[in-house]
Amino acid sequence: MSDCLFCRIISGEIPADKVYEDAQVVAFRDVNPQAPVHILVIPRRHLSSLNAAEEADGELLANLLLRAAEIARTEGLAATGYRLVANVGADAGESVPHLHFHILGGRPLAWPPG
Amino acid sequence: MSDCLFCRIISGEIPADKVYEDAQVVAFRDVNPQAPVHILVIPRRHLSSLNAAEEADGELLANLLLRAAEIARTEGLAATGYRLVANVGADAGESVPHLHFHILGGRPLAWPPG
Repeated sequence: MSDCLFCRIISGEIPADKVYEDAQVVAFRDVNPQAPVHILVIPRRHLSSLNAAEEADGELLANLLLRAAEIARTEGLAATGYRLVANVGADAGESVPHLHFHILGGRPLAWPPG
Repeated sequence: MSDCLFCRIISGEIPADKVYEDAQVVAFRDVNPQAPVHILVIPRRHLSSLNAAEEADGELLANLLLRAAEIARTEGLAATGYRLVANVGADAGESVPHLHFHILGGRPLAWPPG
């Protein structure tokens, strides 16, 4: 049993409002949404963050971005827009050490981004 | 002559404080920095945004993320952390329609990210 929250969501041990899954990627709604649409897009394989990504992880990284764009379209955000955010480390407030991209949309997003 | 600001930066027509470049990727400091380190990572090839990315762009997208992580390390952000942000469309305040990832670091970043 993993002690990684997101690995436990992937395995189904912890419930989540999943909106997408395939062989490599899982996406689900953030339990603490910061916008009308707030979805997390994560790799099934545990990768702690972008800091831990290696050249060999390229295909996985590309798929995370391509699926995120696809999910944003499905959520009706293609025309109005959305922000994609990845937090690395303490200064960014990284909360779960399993690589994840936040998709935020459905409202105007201010600048700076935090 | 392109009317895209970032294409003109890539060509050298408009100066920028470049911190990295290779055959696919260019990175330079944001002229309106929102954090002590604020760098934009962009593809040389004009791609308007994540919305316009196709499966065939996967390698390019992966390289943008891998180079962003590398640049963050070079800038001394690996230990303290950083936020990676991509804006798509009006709600996100997308300012230049040439795909770019913001790296922000060097200070604590608040939540929500905008």
